[in-house]
Amino acid sequence: QGILERLDAGEIVIGDGGFVFALEKRGYVKAGPWTPEATVEHPEAVRQLHREFLRAGSNVLQTFTFYASEDKLENRGNYVAEKISGQKVNEAACDIAREVANEGDALVAGGVSQTPSYLSCKDKAEVKAVFRKQLEVFMKKNVDFLIAEYFEHVEEAVWAVEVLKESGKPVAATMCIGPEGDMHGVSPGQCAVQLVKAGASIVGVNCHFDPDTSLKTMKLMKEGLQAAKLKAHLMSQPLAFHTPDCGKQGFIDLPEFPFGLEPRIVTRWDIQKYARQAYDLGIRYIGGCCGFEPYHVRAIAEELAPERGFLPEASEKHGSWGNGLSMHTKPWVRARARKEYWENLKPASGRPYCPSMSKPDGWGVTKGGKELMQQKEATSEQQLKELFQKQKI
Amino acid sequence: QGILERLDAGEIVIGDGGFVFALEKRGYVKAGPWTPEATVEHPEAVRQLHREFLRAGSNVLQTFTFYASEDKLENRGNYVAEKISGQKVNEAACDIAREVANEGDALVAGGVSQTPSYLSCKDKAEVKAVFRKQLEVFMKKNVDFLIAEYFEHVEEAVWAVEVLKESGKPVAATMCIGPEGDMHGVSPGQCAVQLVKAGASIVGVNCHFDPDTSLKTMKLMKEGLQAAKLKAHLMSQPLAFHTPDCGKQGFIDLPEFPFGLEPRIVTRWDIQKYARQAYDLGIRYIGGCCGFEPYHVRAIAEELAPERGFLPEASEKHGSWGNGLSMHTKPWVRARARKEYWENLKPASGRPYCPSMSKPDGWGVTKGGKELMQQKEATSEQQLKELFQKQKI
Amino acid sequence: QGILERLDAGEIVIGDGGFVFALEKRGYVKAGPWTPEATVEHPEAVRQLHREFLRAGSNVLQTFTFYASEDKLENRGNYVAEKISGQKVNEAACDIAREVANEGDALVAGGVSQTPSYLSCKDKAEVKAVFRKQLEVFMKKNVDFLIAEYFEHVEEAVWAVEVLKESGKPVAATMCIGPEGDMHGVSPGQCAVQLVKAGASIVGVNCHFDPDTSLKTMKLMKEGLQAAKLKAHLMSQPLAFHTPDCGKQGFIDLPEFPFGLEPRIVTRWDIQKYARQAYDLGIRYIGGCCGFEPYHVRAIAEELAPERGFLPEASEKHGSWGNGLSMHTKPWVRARARKEYWENLKPASGRPYCPSMSKPDGWGVTKGGKELMQQKEATSEQQLKELFQKQKI
Amino acid sequence: QGILERLDAGEIVIGDGGFVFALEKRGYVKAGPWTPEATVEHPEAVRQLHREFLRAGSNVLQTFTFYASEDKLENRGNYVAEKISGQKVNEAACDIAREVANEGDALVAGGVSQTPSYLSCKDKAEVKAVFRKQLEVFMKKNVDFLIAEYFEHVEEAVWAVEVLKESGKPVAATMCIGPEGDMHGVSPGQCAVQLVKAGASIVGVNCHFDPDTSLKTMKLMKEGLQAAKLKAHLMSQPLAFHTPDCGKQGFIDLPEFPFGLEPRIVTRWDIQKYARQAYDLGIRYIGGCCGFEPYHVRAIAEELAPERGFLPEASEKHGSWGNGLSMHTKPWVRARARKEYWENLKPASGRPYCPSMSKPDGWGVTKGGKELMQQKEATSEQQLKELFQKQKI
Repeated sequence: QGILERLDAGEIVIGDGGFVFALEKRGYVKAGPWTPEATVEHPEAVRQLHREFLRAGSNVLQTFTFYASEDKLENRGNYVAEKISGQKVNEAACDIAREVANEGDALVAGGVSQTPSYLSCKDKAEVKAVFRKQLEVFMKKNVDFLIAEYFEHVEEAVWAVEVLKESGKPVAATMCIGPEGDMHGVSPGQCAVQLVKAGASIVGVNCHFDPDTSLKTMKLMKEGLQAAKLKAHLMSQPLAFHTPDCGKQGFIDLPEFPFGLEPRIVTRWDIQKYARQAYDLGIRYIGGCCGFEPYHVRAIAEELAPERGFLPEASEKHGSWGNGLSMHTKPWVRARARKEYWENLKPASGRPYCPSMSKPDGWGVTKGGKELMQQKEATSEQQLKELFQKQKI
Repeated sequence: QGILERLDAGEIVIGDGGFVFALEKRGYVKAGPWTPEATVEHPEAVRQLHREFLRAGSNVLQTFTFYASEDKLENRGNYVAEKISGQKVNEAACDIAREVANEGDALVAGGVSQTPSYLSCKDKAEVKAVFRKQLEVFMKKNVDFLIAEYFEHVEEAVWAVEVLKESGKPVAATMCIGPEGDMHGVSPGQCAVQLVKAGASIVGVNCHFDPDTSLKTMKLMKEGLQAAKLKAHLMSQPLAFHTPDCGKQGFIDLPEFPFGLEPRIVTRWDIQKYARQAYDLGIRYIGGCCGFEPYHVRAIAEELAPERGFLPEASEKHGSWGNGLSMHTKPWVRARARKEYWENLKPASGRPYCPSMSKPDGWGVTKGGKELMQQKEATSEQQLKELFQKQKI
Repeated sequence: QGILERLDAGEIVIGDGGFVFALEKRGYVKAGPWTPEATVEHPEAVRQLHREFLRAGSNVLQTFTFYASEDKLENRGNYVAEKISGQKVNEAACDIAREVANEGDALVAGGVSQTPSYLSCKDKAEVKAVFRKQLEVFMKKNVDFLIAEYFEHVEEAVWAVEVLKESGKPVAATMCIGPEGDMHGVSPGQCAVQLVKAGASIVGVNCHFDPDTSLKTMKLMKEGLQAAKLKAHLMSQPLAFHTPDCGKQGFIDLPEFPFGLEPRIVTRWDIQKYARQAYDLGIRYIGGCCGFEPYHVRAIAEELAPERGFLPEASEKHGSWGNGLSMHTKPWVRARARKEYWENLKPASGRPYCPSMSKPDGWGVTKGGKELMQQKEATSEQQLKELFQKQKI
Repeated sequence: QGILERLDAGEIVIGDGGFVFALEKRGYVKAGPWTPEATVEHPEAVRQLHREFLRAGSNVLQTFTFYASEDKLENRGNYVAEKISGQKVNEAACDIAREVANEGDALVAGGVSQTPSYLSCKDKAEVKAVFRKQLEVFMKKNVDFLIAEYFEHVEEAVWAVEVLKESGKPVAATMCIGPEGDMHGVSPGQCAVQLVKAGASIVGVNCHFDPDTSLKTMKLMKEGLQAAKLKAHLMSQPLAFHTPDCGKQGFIDLPEFPFGLEPRIVTRWDIQKYARQAYDLGIRYIGGCCGFEPYHVRAIAEELAPERGFLPEASEKHGSWGNGLSMHTKPWVRARARKEYWENLKPASGRPYCPSMSKPDGWGVTKGGKELMQQKEATSEQQLKELFQKQKI
């Protein structure tokens, strides 16, 4: 059954987690460029991660094609052999995802994300051409549906949806925005409306913000759609990091990004709370993004097991609410084998010399940035960036 | 070259990370029993983790035989099919480790840990029989050397070393103790002395405490050996969690164990500091235990690359001190591509409603435990445990 | 010179600090009722606190008549001898303030605050009668001007201003509200407009929120007045506690109120920052409320010394930016005798087992309150309170 | 009744709080020199603080003669009129204390502290001459007993006790040390033994460390006396700041000293816990030092009211365990009027951008200090200080 059949029937669809962060820790993705050449270089690592998400309960395996547009891959510099083309990376990604999806009951989704082309030129035709090139691979490999994800500007996201719709396949669209809206100030409600009007059947958010913040954004999207009398399925794939302190551009501006985020990693219990709240808000496509490991996805599946009627395969190695601890040797650890314990735990950081929140970095706070922001002539982010770079910070 | 040849020649030997925690998150190990039946049930998952550690720089692959003594496996209850015997699990573990070790320049080490038998009966012959049964598998599979690890009582550790020495192979021995010593009050220095006298060529600590605390214990072990004019190689494999607040029994008593430890996870920079300090203390076998993921092992290898003269394979996907970020799109993120930035970062938890330290749980603080402790007749831990269990807490 | 002459001439007027909190710690005011019978019982203690504020730089001494309306004093129960009437308390307060004001260059302000009468009956005439009774004392004692302060409902504040205006003396009016506005949902901008229209020459906020939050509210008041093309002087007297985590009703709902607020006390450097920001926002009547001790008022006077041209008397015992430390015996303490040090200090709490933020208490979170809130028939706060009390929480 | 009669009879004697910190905040003492010329310049302020402590329950009023030795007063530089001699300051201090003591049932204690003379020359006769000069005033004014307090070196404390004993009056001696002992490495137990042998009838600690740490030191002093079969009364007057993170030299080395300590201020409930633990340890002279305000002293008196049979006068304005809140207008605040609430509160700092612990400053961590420490020739603290000063940090 396809994605829309499932959602139309009221089923809960569980997404997967974040590949770039998980594979960075495993040694296969480089932070900075974040490109997915591992599909060609180390397919066994990509395959294994897909398997773990499937086993944890994912109903959708996203092809590991993040940032794999040709224009992005060109940015990688010399560290990847030139012979690995974007097409090859994307084709391998599709093959691996399909192979693992066939081991279970999962759909394969091909994804496109925001492009360097949009940021540097803003020509609709050129940007669409980039998406179309990726789409060709997805069509050749016959993925089940398509996702336009990780867009900071709704304009570009709409272009992506328009291209993906040419395929005739169902299209989902998620933006990496918070309650303040996109980088041009379009509200979440308006973003959702524009995406649905462009042809997306499923809309929502992914990445950049923690579950709490993402659900606030989802609420605004839902209200925007209701006000416009539009219907669409809702989807959320937030970070697995606590980010109450981040600004409009999300976790990238936090000083801990990307190599000091450990103390912010959410627990499985945080995810169960998120899954329940997402469900209560009417979201039926519930997954994760950066920071989500297989056990976080399993937590979604376990929280919603009463509604779905079954547990994921990986729960054979996990007692609900920690009840596997009833087999622990120490009695006071056995006493933790219950829901109330984990629900109420306020986990300590073990870092008494560190604060609990950070001030986000960015144009405004980096040396020189504030002054640049005040220059009236610097109207676009691109211009700002150029000015910024000239100052060699 | 064998482990002793390497260490005798002054080489740095990098250990691997913790399997039970990593595989629990990936969905293959159950917290509570913590047993390694995945070697038979899901060999591909175990193989992949070994590969990631190898790629990150590990020179030793430990067979995934933790808690795989027959008496421990019996504790698992019904969740593992009875047909998987401990022998089968252990044999599979050896085969997988050897297969991956052959892909690089790594040694295979077979390991034994503390046993339920010791805690319940304390009969030397019986406990030794348990170790001997595991050793048979290691001999049949011809591992390169042997590790007796995760012992809370030096008495049992000595028995384990004595059994392992019967094999003629080099023996390393590490205890899961802190600066206060073993559970019977034997100091770290005395523990080290007894282990070396029993035949261990390499001694140290693993698990239960964070890198800082573990290095304090190592310093005491080193001083104990020096005072006794004994020679041995030093080895440390600590947790990858910050635990400044734990008591004598280590992180198991922290309320966050094992499902709320996320905010305590150490960063790669914490590990670089640990690797440097361990090296400066004279430790040459440097690895990790629970919480160590492949990128933590890579951090050891990167920190000590000047001494070793080479980087691990996985560093092709990692710029030293974050320099991969120089390819990031945002200028203020590019500004993080330098050592000073990450060395000085005090990472926030994103959890302002949580404390930074916890009071350890345990006999003394759990309901009922305090009273039991005060009962004069309850002199041994075992008796306490029985009394405790009768009260059904 | 009167208050308006000073403000009209562009002078900075420095208010005083909070009497009930300071005298509670000194042993003369009871938390809970918070009434000022100390003016009769222990005039020397009230006199001394006035003197300290005067010495710290206060240009206004507020009579210690907080919560001294007759209807409030009746609530005190048996702990104050019945013979002390509200009139006697208020008269003594005026005498003491005037005596100390005459020791320097300070004005005496008589103050009225929100009344139990308003909360329980809401009859305009009756509430005004309560204010009028207090005003009689202020007229008899000929205070220099009048302040209506600590109002949660703009309706009652307007009534108070109307009564005070009958005197012909200048009237200032401050509300204990945050950026969300008054308890009936009137915005700060609208509150300011209504107060000015009622006759207040000076408007602003006092109590309930920390300096940062109070300045946000002040900005909204200023914008409201500008939009309505009304002119008035601005005044702010916030808490000396950090309260980033409080809700609409301010610090009273924080679980630490009132006996666990110590870790939230602001430093003198926080106050210097507040004074500068208040000045930059155009506020010229700058003082404090609960938590403000004499040294906090001195910090206002020291920060604004360049604008005012002089330091307060108490600065003879204080080096600007800690420069008195240059006389310390330890060299590393002498190194702290500079502005950059104290400006950048992130002071630790010394409480690693405590969080950095709390969830505010209140109707919604107290046991039973949530359910009551959902009862449609419970429309008023008063009704809720009655229902609440029946449940005996 | 004298101090020894009271203690010998088993009475609890409650000390007072810290004058220099309280009067610094009130505007009468300058941080850095910390000298008590206020006794001459502003006797009303000193008198009022004595009264507040008396009212809070203090049985002893210490003359405000801290750091008032002639050699110390010379250090003040120009900010105090030269005409105020140390003798005049000390005489005034005695008069004020006696005047207030006569208002209740309190003893007057004259105190001497460590001297610049000791640090700079170490000549026994010269140092003793300084103490003797202060003692003359105490004898002339006939104080009830004498306290040698705030000594970092037991050698100097012993000299002080020897001088004070010449008077024939009872002598108490407290050192500002932690569990690690004095600055020359003499253990707390040995310090106590030497002080008793020198003639002190009461020994203990004051200042520099928080209640928890101070009680640890007291336990060591008690054990030292027991081991030496010596008898003496025990006394503790710790800080009212949480300092779990300070080093051997106490809170002066914390980066927050002295102008950023606010988040560390202890609550009245912390003090009740301290008073109970001190009592349980056998301490019968229980007071406070820097940071102790009148309400902290009241908390000692309230906690020990069951043992003493009465409450202090100031408790008329304080309900035990917050029960005055039962008169609060908001029901959820009334719900805080109980012991369990305040005992279990973990008060938040309201400072999410600050850490919970700091690294102490000092020789080792200040720029340049580390190198100096490593210079073998710099054997004494004095030499280090000189070297340090030459580098003009």
